[in-house]
Amino acid sequence: MALDPDLQAVDLWWRAANYCAVGQIYLLDNPLLREPLRPEHVKPRLLGHWGTSPGLNLVYAHLNRLIRERDLDAIFVAGPGHGGPAVVANTWLEGTYSEVYPQVGQDEEGMRRLFRQFSFPGGIPSHVAPETPGSIHEGGELGYSLAHAFGAAFDNPGLLVACVVGDGEAETGALAASWHSTAFLNPLTDGAVLPVLHLNGYKIAGPTVLARIPEDQLRRLLEGAGWEPRFVTGDDPEQVHVALAEALEECVDIIAAIGDRARSAGPDETVERPTWPMVVLRTPKGWTGPREVDGVPVEGTFRAHQVPLSAVRTNPEHLAMLEQWLRSYRPEELFDDDGAPVEAIWRAAPRGQRRMSDNPHANGGLLMRPLDLPDAAGHAVEVVHPGRGASAATQVLGGWLRDVMQDNADRFRVMGPDETASNRLQDLFEVTDRTWMAHRYAGDDHLAPDGRVMEVLSEHLCQGWLEGYLLTGRHGLFNCYEAFVHIVDSMFNQHAKWLKVTRDLPWRRPIPSLNYLLSSHVWRQDHNGFSHQDPGFIDHVVNKKAEIVRVYLPPDANSLLAVAEHCLAGTDKVNVIVAGKNPALDYLTLERARAHCARGLGVWEWAGTSAGEEPDVVMACAGDVPTLETLAAVALLREHLPELRVRVVNVVDLMRLQPTAEHPHGLPDRDFDELFTPDRPVVFAFHGYPWLIHRLTYRRTNHANLHVRGYKENGTTTTPFDMVMLNDLDRFHLVMDVIDRVPGLGVRAAGLRQEMVDRRFAARQWTRDHGEDDPAISSWEWPWPAEDEAGR
Amino acid sequence: MALDPDLQAVDLWWRAANYCAVGQIYLLDNPLLREPLRPEHVKPRLLGHWGTSPGLNLVYAHLNRLIRERDLDAIFVAGPGHGGPAVVANTWLEGTYSEVYPQVGQDEEGMRRLFRQFSFPGGIPSHVAPETPGSIHEGGELGYSLAHAFGAAFDNPGLLVACVVGDGEAETGALAASWHSTAFLNPLTDGAVLPVLHLNGYKIAGPTVLARIPEDQLRRLLEGAGWEPRFVTGDDPEQVHVALAEALEECVDIIAAIGDRARSAGPDETVERPTWPMVVLRTPKGWTGPREVDGVPVEGTFRAHQVPLSAVRTNPEHLAMLEQWLRSYRPEELFDDDGAPVEAIWRAAPRGQRRMSDNPHANGGLLMRPLDLPDAAGHAVEVVHPGRGASAATQVLGGWLRDVMQDNADRFRVMGPDETASNRLQDLFEVTDRTWMAHRYAGDDHLAPDGRVMEVLSEHLCQGWLEGYLLTGRHGLFNCYEAFVHIVDSMFNQHAKWLKVTRDLPWRRPIPSLNYLLSSHVWRQDHNGFSHQDPGFIDHVVNKKAEIVRVYLPPDANSLLAVAEHCLAGTDKVNVIVAGKNPALDYLTLERARAHCARGLGVWEWAGTSAGEEPDVVMACAGDVPTLETLAAVALLREHLPELRVRVVNVVDLMRLQPTAEHPHGLPDRDFDELFTPDRPVVFAFHGYPWLIHRLTYRRTNHANLHVRGYKENGTTTTPFDMVMLNDLDRFHLVMDVIDRVPGLGVRAAGLRQEMVDRRFAARQWTRDHGEDDPAISSWEWPWPAEDEAGR
Repeated sequence: MALDPDLQAVDLWWRAANYCAVGQIYLLDNPLLREPLRPEHVKPRLLGHWGTSPGLNLVYAHLNRLIRERDLDAIFVAGPGHGGPAVVANTWLEGTYSEVYPQVGQDEEGMRRLFRQFSFPGGIPSHVAPETPGSIHEGGELGYSLAHAFGAAFDNPGLLVACVVGDGEAETGALAASWHSTAFLNPLTDGAVLPVLHLNGYKIAGPTVLARIPEDQLRRLLEGAGWEPRFVTGDDPEQVHVALAEALEECVDIIAAIGDRARSAGPDETVERPTWPMVVLRTPKGWTGPREVDGVPVEGTFRAHQVPLSAVRTNPEHLAMLEQWLRSYRPEELFDDDGAPVEAIWRAAPRGQRRMSDNPHANGGLLMRPLDLPDAAGHAVEVVHPGRGASAATQVLGGWLRDVMQDNADRFRVMGPDETASNRLQDLFEVTDRTWMAHRYAGDDHLAPDGRVMEVLSEHLCQGWLEGYLLTGRHGLFNCYEAFVHIVDSMFNQHAKWLKVTRDLPWRRPIPSLNYLLSSHVWRQDHNGFSHQDPGFIDHVVNKKAEIVRVYLPPDANSLLAVAEHCLAGTDKVNVIVAGKNPALDYLTLERARAHCARGLGVWEWAGTSAGEEPDVVMACAGDVPTLETLAAVALLREHLPELRVRVVNVVDLMRLQPTAEHPHGLPDRDFDELFTPDRPVVFAFHGYPWLIHRLTYRRTNHANLHVRGYKENGTTTTPFDMVMLNDLDRFHLVMDVIDRVPGLGVRAAGLRQEMVDRRFAARQWTRDHGEDDPAISSWEWPWPAEDEAGR
Repeated sequence: MALDPDLQAVDLWWRAANYCAVGQIYLLDNPLLREPLRPEHVKPRLLGHWGTSPGLNLVYAHLNRLIRERDLDAIFVAGPGHGGPAVVANTWLEGTYSEVYPQVGQDEEGMRRLFRQFSFPGGIPSHVAPETPGSIHEGGELGYSLAHAFGAAFDNPGLLVACVVGDGEAETGALAASWHSTAFLNPLTDGAVLPVLHLNGYKIAGPTVLARIPEDQLRRLLEGAGWEPRFVTGDDPEQVHVALAEALEECVDIIAAIGDRARSAGPDETVERPTWPMVVLRTPKGWTGPREVDGVPVEGTFRAHQVPLSAVRTNPEHLAMLEQWLRSYRPEELFDDDGAPVEAIWRAAPRGQRRMSDNPHANGGLLMRPLDLPDAAGHAVEVVHPGRGASAATQVLGGWLRDVMQDNADRFRVMGPDETASNRLQDLFEVTDRTWMAHRYAGDDHLAPDGRVMEVLSEHLCQGWLEGYLLTGRHGLFNCYEAFVHIVDSMFNQHAKWLKVTRDLPWRRPIPSLNYLLSSHVWRQDHNGFSHQDPGFIDHVVNKKAEIVRVYLPPDANSLLAVAEHCLAGTDKVNVIVAGKNPALDYLTLERARAHCARGLGVWEWAGTSAGEEPDVVMACAGDVPTLETLAAVALLREHLPELRVRVVNVVDLMRLQPTAEHPHGLPDRDFDELFTPDRPVVFAFHGYPWLIHRLTYRRTNHANLHVRGYKENGTTTTPFDMVMLNDLDRFHLVMDVIDRVPGLGVRAAGLRQEMVDRRFAARQWTRDHGEDDPAISSWEWPWPAEDEAGR
């Protein structure tokens, strides 16, 4: 069978890409094999993953044909991202690589550098990475490709997101859940996702489940998630070329028809959930590589996973096999005398930004339009007396987010595991709905195909979709129960690493920040208890590069607004905002809140009693509940020990606690010493695990006098005040902490201390007896007016 | 249609369980409604989740019927674990609850306490929890039920693990992946898992995907994962009773037939993967609850999720509806005059340990047999000169694990995401295989239905299976790439919380510890790079209760053996062991290693130069790579600054760094000061993020002089020595750190410092030029003999 010229060009491309992939794994020099291969042409350390590369190259080559033929707007997500050499090879063949990295030109010297730099000290990573043009997906940790692909497709009608899914990563939880994203993709307003599930049969050493179940089972599995798979199977290149070309053409036809049908269906409400086409491609692992090495089969087995020939420098037989392998692609047909791809390859590439490696969607900052942020003033809570009157912070935020949504209906989404209303952001539903393409019933609560609030009980999907959405230049917010955001710890890691690397790549334009709103936090799990109590995501986040991560603990509703204004306008950061959803005291007017949040921390003069003088004790607080308990403690101290000079410091921007050398937001030592004094006791009431404050401040002058209260992993289903008592964060205990640390307070303080012990006991007893907190405690308000300081 | 007597009894049970569930959510008093319901009988705070409860009760009631009829050995895993009141109700009806908690008897006063304690301060949590008899599954965070169920079934032939899967949790990644566990369940040697996917249609506020796709799609989805679902749908109790009874009977018949077929199939090799039966149960959310409240529908909608009637104390209409609701179950038919369940209910319960709430598998410590641990001596590496000669630590461990596996083939499994061989534990395959029930080909590498190494590229499944295995009293090890164990951060949280709670429940017997072996660690990601570099799991782990968590960083092969011996013998802990898989220097004989690891940290006299005297500097290290770099730095200092008195302290048990008050392994301050001195500089080379050491030691006397080097999130695909240089952990930088911190070293030290700068530069250049590390560096060995100290 002879291939038609189109497919001949595809095959030519495929061979060139395979050649360049093998070259990257093996060659230091002699890239065009102009002379016989010698050991010194080969890298001393052979690193990389060949196994998946020929499959990625095959799909890439075929997609290029379709893009040219139909002028498609497409990007490529490489799930099996270990195939770095493959994707890099394609971008080099397309010319994009040399445009981005001129030192790696499309000539022999460029090819030498292309090969040498791969997995080489000072060179490029072994995976598809931020350094790879056209990628929005780091291919190191597996399982997030399909969620990223969907995120890229949302609100991008006309965009085709091709996504190769490896059969290894298909075993992950995140990927298994991602197939169901079809229930959230709107054919009218979104682009299309075209998955190519690549069954090469093996992960590292073992087989993969999806490659070893009967094909009919696999078909049912995918059909069950809303897909109509086309199977392409083979190990004969010509036959596979024909079958794959046909399958992809059918898929693109069906996708076009789905779009037509959606557009002609009339009002958006009636858009129906289509069955989306996809491809299952079954080809040998390490296809076209060595069939057998040292007497054992390699091609088509797990042994092709990394480097099929491992002793090339020392074993002449391996060296000869490598040369034979490379020559089997007939480099002389692929590259001209200068080492540039031959004209037939050049003609097979799409042009300009139609090249998947140059598509601006894959460098989302190029397309990013900042959010039109409405003034939050219209949503601010009026604060006449600080600490009197309460608001539910997230509910106030929800009002503003509604306006943000309304003003940015083409580029803003809110994700969450079905907690939008539970986290009190329900005002959003005044202007949009929950995205929903599956069946709807009368009486459903705000479901619509074009909804912009995405709820799915999979934190992986929320995070993966949002990442894909941000990486393609749009904006969003992920609201999540505080404890369960740990489910995406590892996804956060990868995204933070991505952002860190892109900072050193000037051609990658800044993308919108990843914003977390953690509500339903540790202190208010009245319905749920211990399993829902974990404030440790902050601890996890601050391990990542200081340039990237920010943590905010706004104490009240207006400060949450101020923080949110800041975060939604930012780029290239990960912002973690922790805020309560229950009514809590308001302290700051919006104006004050904006100033306080901009400073990140500061003295609350209206609350303290040290008025300009050096205090006897600093009472610091971060977080809504700790701020409440601190102020209630201060009130007790003011009442019973009026001579004690107390300074109240509230911390919103946690990173200000770090030294300047450690974090760009770090407070200079002099300022820190001024706030926290060089030698007075500091009682710090903290939202999270107390040792985090120590880890951030251990270099500070007064660290030895710092005493932190926070969550000590004591929890259960109980009342709010019982929770703080369980962890010694309550007002009474904070008073005791002060008395224990300030010297010379005398007998009155001793009496007060005993009273605090008694009141703790009484409070606990009240709770046990009544099943709720003593109203004298739960409805406490700040007893003094402070007109001047409230900043009206 | 009249129900047959058997199903009448089931219905009676169901009504009783529903009554008790509602009672728990609402009632403080008047549990039997002997008087008209008054506001003061109702809890002030209404907490809990009614929505899922009637479904759980229905399944429980039907399972009891089957258990009695067929004398089944069964346990119950409640995926929608928010239905705490339901499962607690059933265990109380069975009598187990009162046996475990005698104060909650089967009488009116007991019922009053049962109702009052639920979600009440000082009472019990709102979810299925460790406190719930018969549970192995905390129901707070969702998604792990099915993996736990499979873990319980492995190596328990004859056990039926019934697992209700909520349609909310079915959206999670972990649950989506768990359906594929059928590819790992051996009908000959394992028990059976019977999932009941309960489609009540809603999660918190939104619908669920699986409830809103066409039933045929759902059928295909499940068939695709190896299941044969039976659909039971309805909202008429009688009809559902009949259909569910029939469906469950069929399932149990098929499971029995699968077992028979497997046993008659001959040698185990030929066991075929069966299609397993399961049930899809579609009944209304909050079934039998209020149909409509305040004019809006509740039963069968998301509004039934938590507390359908929210204003019972203040709204007389709500109060009346609650009374009507409770009376609709006809309590007078359910409980006798004393408040005990009537005889018909008692007769409907299984007897003794056949009660799912009393099944010993669900209190695994009862059945636990400690591992027979072979002597590790046969696997110890010979160490004549410390620091000369190298071993791959995990490979050495693999030899011992092989013997452990051989001697405990009924109760030990090794889990990992396809990294057993990659992590060099391949000796295991001399005595067992990879568990594999899907298709096998000739040439496959150690796949067998009865394999005991479980590889799936889903850390969620590895962790979930292992948890289920441990919770039912068996033993195991989870080996994982260090960076990607973060994927299960949240699962670790829940397991650590479970263990913490069980410590206060004397009736829960200790279960084997959860052991992590983290290899392929941050410093040796030659093939992978930045995405694979994250040592932060330790940071995450140490946030949990000190009684539960342990972290070990053995410096060499023999110390890894010593640590593993200790961990595999333990109970109720989470042990994290970090160890390299690459050849690394050996320092300690097994005898020395055992003593060193038992102490947890100690001075390496043979390496230091302070011999009994007060040192000028302490060089501390934790982890294999930091230990190497520290010793290489010490060697440079010995050579160039022989007068400098250096003390080398190696830390294996990280928890020893904490104060005694913070951790049971904490070193007393006096001992700490003796080791680390009260005032000399300490240069600490650490495996992970450097600030973790500060967080553990900030209370120590000499903390201000502690200078820590570790991973600072600088990484890429490069050579091992380039990696340590990128993070200033290299030997040359450690020498510079010493010189910068020890006063009065004079001009010779200044010269050495400059030489170190130059050698760093030269090393980097060498790496860039050659693509590998300078052999003078990478093959460095400890240059001095130390016969006396090596402890031969």
